[in-house]
Amino acid sequence: MPITLPTPYVLFLGDETEVSNAKTSAGIAYWRSENCVGQIRLKRGIVDLSLADMTVQQAVEAGAKCLVVGIVNFGGTIASTWLPVLKSALEAGLDIAAGLHARLNDVPELRRLAEKHGRKLYDIRQPEQDFNVGLGVKRTGKRLLSVGTDCSVGKMYTSLAIEKELRMRGHAADFRATGQTGMFIVGTGVCVDAVVSDFISGAAESLSPDNDVNHWDIVEGQGSLFHPAYAGVTLGLLHGSQPDALVLCHDATRETLEDYLDFPIPEFGHCMDTYLAAASLTNPSVQFVGMSINTSKLNDTNAQQYLMRIEQEYGLPCCDPVRTGVTAIVDRMLKKVTL
Amino acid sequence: MPITLPTPYVLFLGDETEVSNAKTSAGIAYWRSENCVGQIRLKRGIVDLSLADMTVQQAVEAGAKCLVVGIVNFGGTIASTWLPVLKSALEAGLDIAAGLHARLNDVPELRRLAEKHGRKLYDIRQPEQDFNVGLGVKRTGKRLLSVGTDCSVGKMYTSLAIEKELRMRGHAADFRATGQTGMFIVGTGVCVDAVVSDFISGAAESLSPDNDVNHWDIVEGQGSLFHPAYAGVTLGLLHGSQPDALVLCHDATRETLEDYLDFPIPEFGHCMDTYLAAASLTNPSVQFVGMSINTSKLNDTNAQQYLMRIEQEYGLPCCDPVRTGVTAIVDRMLKKVTL
Repeated sequence: MPITLPTPYVLFLGDETEVSNAKTSAGIAYWRSENCVGQIRLKRGIVDLSLADMTVQQAVEAGAKCLVVGIVNFGGTIASTWLPVLKSALEAGLDIAAGLHARLNDVPELRRLAEKHGRKLYDIRQPEQDFNVGLGVKRTGKRLLSVGTDCSVGKMYTSLAIEKELRMRGHAADFRATGQTGMFIVGTGVCVDAVVSDFISGAAESLSPDNDVNHWDIVEGQGSLFHPAYAGVTLGLLHGSQPDALVLCHDATRETLEDYLDFPIPEFGHCMDTYLAAASLTNPSVQFVGMSINTSKLNDTNAQQYLMRIEQEYGLPCCDPVRTGVTAIVDRMLKKVTL
Repeated sequence: MPITLPTPYVLFLGDETEVSNAKTSAGIAYWRSENCVGQIRLKRGIVDLSLADMTVQQAVEAGAKCLVVGIVNFGGTIASTWLPVLKSALEAGLDIAAGLHARLNDVPELRRLAEKHGRKLYDIRQPEQDFNVGLGVKRTGKRLLSVGTDCSVGKMYTSLAIEKELRMRGHAADFRATGQTGMFIVGTGVCVDAVVSDFISGAAESLSPDNDVNHWDIVEGQGSLFHPAYAGVTLGLLHGSQPDALVLCHDATRETLEDYLDFPIPEFGHCMDTYLAAASLTNPSVQFVGMSINTSKLNDTNAQQYLMRIEQEYGLPCCDPVRTGVTAIVDRMLKKVTL
């Protein structure tokens, strides 16, 4: 079984001043504000998620069950300045969850206190369960996977937006988290890039088990088949997810891979053909149902032109989940993916 | 740095009666008999590698530096019946290496004895080093990777045969092991399927670092791009290896994937196109230089006909490394892969 985090959370922001280092917290607050009783900050004038500022004790009184370390420190370490708050959280009856490179469970003081008070330390980047190797056996229920031209192009955001739209329309749908921010948002999932290679597709299979025939699993994609570092993760996730529907995610202003400037963004048609060919191994009826473009760096006119041009060129609904919503993509997936 | 095992070995066969469970030992004895001083068996009438039978003490006197547990027990455990020999090996000054699911380092008695005597326990399936994520930066030197229509179709054997042929002709060449048997054979390498997913291609990059422009790294392939469980490993290894040359390996009598009977063996042309498309991400000049077919289950006439037919159909040298040798493949790779 994948881990399941206790909710609601109180989000710990340390003394973080860079918004980009608090992306995880911001994602949780945006997508699951109902799971956040407030924020704990070591001082004022730093990153602010517009949640109620509180102490550990106030968080407990507000019903918090788990303190989430929702920031990424330089080097992914656990700062010594955080320890007083983390320790008092354990003493006050909260569990703690983090997705840092360094493990909470490797800090003796925290481990000792957690044992003493019967609390749990969740290092969500390190899977606790053993996975099986992939079987490739078709499962019941429907699945959508977001895939990308690169990393960090909005796959999580797109998947959550599609889950939300489906639920609003009364469809049974579950976002399936494959990275740490997504796992904090829904409280469960598998950090697939931390799984031992032999078990990538097996882990992905376990993430969206057999379900009702009309149920949709909306699986968060990772990496890109065109990424020289992470394509293996992407392919294992693709095979294990057995998607019926794919959405191609892209950042409108990106021309090369982020941090890999020698690698151009693949042409969309070639990119989609490659994803379809790979995905068809475990689901021959896989199809693209849309393209999801992050147009945040374009003005309104340019964004609309971009989306219209791409939509005409590829014959698929082309949305920006923030600017336009994902209605058109969901319309298409419900219409085209039949039993 | 990848691990490097001390040689020569003495091969420990326990009381194994199934030849197939002693494949690792058989591979070491076949490819590196000069590294094997003998075999240790718990009793007679069991698997025999035609090496000198000896005791631990005799192995030490014959110069052995490391006892290799070259069998796979049911469940990958360390049998209690093995412990007396393993313990006396440590006491006599030998290191121990194993590639089982269970770790030597998790057996308290062995760990304590190893510490006491300053010996080392190598669990070669568990990488000891940290890897970087892949960079995708082209490295100097030439590389060949064996790829397959499935698992267990002769990729290791083919790679070792090509290394041997290159060395016989006076070329600088190194087999690069990516699985446990290969690692025992050459004493070093990386068990790529045990690497955390995020670092597959980074691990593959570290395995064949920059080298002389005329040096050949012959990288042992793993899995298959058409395998629903292991394709992620295959793709990460393919991207990180940056091969100039590929050899397609296949078992002549196999029609579906082994143990995955719903998955047919892909048509060779489609299969090679898929490998080339994926490999070209990190090396656009990649090409196939041959096909290596295990024809052991065919009689001589049928094997020759099969190889000739495939050779004509695909226009590539088509060899069985055991039956015909790999001369034609090596001829082609040396002729076609230029600077």
